[in-house]
Amino acid sequence: MSDDLKKGLEGVLVAESELSFIDGDEGRLVYRGYDIEDLARDASYEEVLYLLWHGRLPNRDELDEFSESMAAEREIDDGVMATVRELAAADEEPMAALRTTVSQLSAYDDDAAADPTDEEANLRKGRRITAKIPTILAAFVRVRDGEEPVAPREDLNHATNFLYMLNGEVPDDVLADVFDQALVLHADHGLNASTFTAMTVASTHADLYSAVTAGVGALSGPLHGGANQDVMETLLEVDESDDDPVEWTRSALADGRRIPGWGHRVYSVKDPRASILEARSDALAQSTGESKWCEYTREIETYLTEEEGLVEKEIAPNVDFYSGSVYYQLGIPVDLYTPIFAMSRIGGWVAHVDEYLENNRLIRPRSRYVGPDARSLVPIDERSSDE
Amino acid sequence: MSDDLKKGLEGVLVAESELSFIDGDEGRLVYRGYDIEDLARDASYEEVLYLLWHGRLPNRDELDEFSESMAAEREIDDGVMATVRELAAADEEPMAALRTTVSQLSAYDDDAAADPTDEEANLRKGRRITAKIPTILAAFVRVRDGEEPVAPREDLNHATNFLYMLNGEVPDDVLADVFDQALVLHADHGLNASTFTAMTVASTHADLYSAVTAGVGALSGPLHGGANQDVMETLLEVDESDDDPVEWTRSALADGRRIPGWGHRVYSVKDPRASILEARSDALAQSTGESKWCEYTREIETYLTEEEGLVEKEIAPNVDFYSGSVYYQLGIPVDLYTPIFAMSRIGGWVAHVDEYLENNRLIRPRSRYVGPDARSLVPIDERSSDE
Repeated sequence: MSDDLKKGLEGVLVAESELSFIDGDEGRLVYRGYDIEDLARDASYEEVLYLLWHGRLPNRDELDEFSESMAAEREIDDGVMATVRELAAADEEPMAALRTTVSQLSAYDDDAAADPTDEEANLRKGRRITAKIPTILAAFVRVRDGEEPVAPREDLNHATNFLYMLNGEVPDDVLADVFDQALVLHADHGLNASTFTAMTVASTHADLYSAVTAGVGALSGPLHGGANQDVMETLLEVDESDDDPVEWTRSALADGRRIPGWGHRVYSVKDPRASILEARSDALAQSTGESKWCEYTREIETYLTEEEGLVEKEIAPNVDFYSGSVYYQLGIPVDLYTPIFAMSRIGGWVAHVDEYLENNRLIRPRSRYVGPDARSLVPIDERSSDE
Repeated sequence: MSDDLKKGLEGVLVAESELSFIDGDEGRLVYRGYDIEDLARDASYEEVLYLLWHGRLPNRDELDEFSESMAAEREIDDGVMATVRELAAADEEPMAALRTTVSQLSAYDDDAAADPTDEEANLRKGRRITAKIPTILAAFVRVRDGEEPVAPREDLNHATNFLYMLNGEVPDDVLADVFDQALVLHADHGLNASTFTAMTVASTHADLYSAVTAGVGALSGPLHGGANQDVMETLLEVDESDDDPVEWTRSALADGRRIPGWGHRVYSVKDPRASILEARSDALAQSTGESKWCEYTREIETYLTEEEGLVEKEIAPNVDFYSGSVYYQLGIPVDLYTPIFAMSRIGGWVAHVDEYLENNRLIRPRSRYVGPDARSLVPIDERSSDE
């Protein structure tokens, strides 16, 4: 046992993985050898799921079969819908509602009790959970807003069907395509906290529902998945203020505030996912007729980069800095941004669990004891209050 | 970044902790300086919770106030009870049911949205979840068995009230005391997989409900909390066979089977918790009039130690080897043993989360990429099926 304390496990290698490669200094992200730019441009979220789960991109027949099998799993059981309604009525946080309902899904899955190392069963379970998350989220939002849930449509792809269930109408192609890209961009990212959590849970041979539920919980934290929501709330604050974005940012920094969506444990340069979303902002602005959000974002980025010199300090825009305004333009409620991250990242959770279980080792680190030396127990009636 | 792969994080120090110290070579376990033998003999589960959460043992007034405040939180909301009934009707696994319902508790807790680093709020939440888990578990078992839930009683301690809610009658003192000891023994154990999972989730600043829900999921795995159930199933198999325990064990080993409840990542000698439970077996046998389970256990232990020489190989009985038969004698259903482990270990989860957040660092390790080199994306209609 080494005596070094590995706080936050920074830089500690816990597994080998064929799934994703991040070059934080070059700003490069790769899924199984494919650059994220190529995948975002040319592959759908379903293709990327297939790539992550089956090791290679599907051909047309394989993709059709995969997509159909997933679309057929979109309906949720009445017991889950009852919980969605109950949680919406109780004004539960969306990520907490997702955590509870994803956990509940296991009760209606005949594969839930399968051997936790059965790869085929895990991929079936992973496909089912992935298929049902959008249904849960859209139903939760609609019920909360006093509307009835919209049933899923099997003829729409994953991204389009979600926006359809959320808004009750099929989105135009630009919106559907940008949303599909956002799902592709968020699908995997090495051993981030939620993926590592899912692996740790699975390493006990707990079933996939436990791993994914834990992943949802980890992703809900503002130091992980919660930041995209913070970015949009910041942009809304800029919009409501009398200052222009640069003035607003200057005075926010002077007040000691941090601008969300900047800096990343792994990237020292601009996150490639941020660049991809930025490049789509114009098309999105044209389609929605609203360009101010991407203008604010760019102006703040230029200011922080050129005037505040953040990039020289290796603090650069991360994916959250651009995803917030993209989701806003897609008409998605701000408190649903992190759940949407989960809707995509489940691809990585399932893939990493599956890969880790091939050569499993229980994840069980140690702590260094720094507590009191051996002491004897004083009977309760002889204890003082400041013992 | 070191190039060493830390598979399973074996021996990796990820935090300093004042909570528990394990000397795996001496078979010693300590909570905040107190030997587990002393605590098991002289302290109740409530005292141990206070010790773990507040840093020292309570005096009489402090313990009374703490116990009363916890007892006052035992009732569960109607929405949670509805889910308990739904999950019992759907024949859900008890640990999965616990995972879902613990997650759901957040919807009814006004502190759920508190700052996740607010220590006071976290201790209130921890106390509430700890108070409600027994109510959930007892109700789940009774509804599953076609009976109505028994409401909690505020005048009984944590251990006694659980057995009362489970069986509908107040247990005798020996049973209540042994169960209380079992809760004390399982309350904390360093950075085991479920505790580490809870810390990882909390390190994102996700709230305590996410951390505890994830802990339940991790504990459900047979390589972690699930083993005590396997031990009892083995003893039941021994009982039903025509062989005596030694003959049964010899032939099981010859068939390549592993005897559950032996060996531990941290202990190279007999787990001190196993010794404590073993020492209580006789009193328990006398109280219940059934001594065969502890006889089987001892005969198997003697055989594996003396004939098979497992102890020389540093494979020794762990706590699960004795807790299974203790729970059986307490009349607890076999598939509830792991949930009971959770009912106790939540003490450690909350304490470690609280301690880690004092000086938080996002837990985010790395993986070594061993996937394909950079490759270009072939358009889908040009992909072969074996590309």
